[in-house]
Amino acid sequence: MTESNIAADQLRQFIERIEYLESERKSLAADVRDIYSEAKACGFDPKAMRAVLKLRSMDDASRNELDAMVGVYREVLSV
Amino acid sequence: MTESNIAADQLRQFIERIEYLESERKSLAADVRDIYSEAKACGFDPKAMRAVLKLRSMDDASRNELDAMVGVYREVLSV
Repeated sequence: MTESNIAADQLRQFIERIEYLESERKSLAADVRDIYSEAKACGFDPKAMRAVLKLRSMDDASRNELDAMVGVYREVLSV
Repeated sequence: MTESNIAADQLRQFIERIEYLESERKSLAADVRDIYSEAKACGFDPKAMRAVLKLRSMDDASRNELDAMVGVYREVLSV
C-alpha cells in the first residue's frame, strides 16, 4: 500500500466517523422535535418550553441578572 | 394528585427528556470537534474536510450543478 493510499484511507475514515456522528445528531434533533410535538398535543406551549429550557440551563446568578435586565427593558419599551 | 400537579409532572418530564437529548447532542458535537482535531494532527485540513463533507451529502445532480455554478462565479469574479 502506497503512502497516498494510506492517507486516502485515513481521510475516508475520518470523514465517515464525522458522517456517522452527524447522522446521530440529526436523529437526536428529530427526537427533540417529536417531544415538542408530543408536548404541544398535550396542551403545552413549545415557545414557552424553549424559554424555560434556556432559563434552566443558566446558573441562578445569571438567571436573576437576566430577569432583572429583561424587566428593565420591558418597562423602558412598555412591552 | 391534583390536575395541576399532573400537568407540572408532565411538563417536567418533557423538559427533562429534551434536556437529556440536548446533552447527547452537545456530546456528539464535542466528539465531532475531536475528530477534526485528530485529523488536523494527522495533517488533514479541517476546512477542506468540511467542504468535502458538504459535497458528499449532496446527490450527483445537485453536486454537478453546484460545481458548474461555482465554476462560473469563480470565473466571473476571478477568484
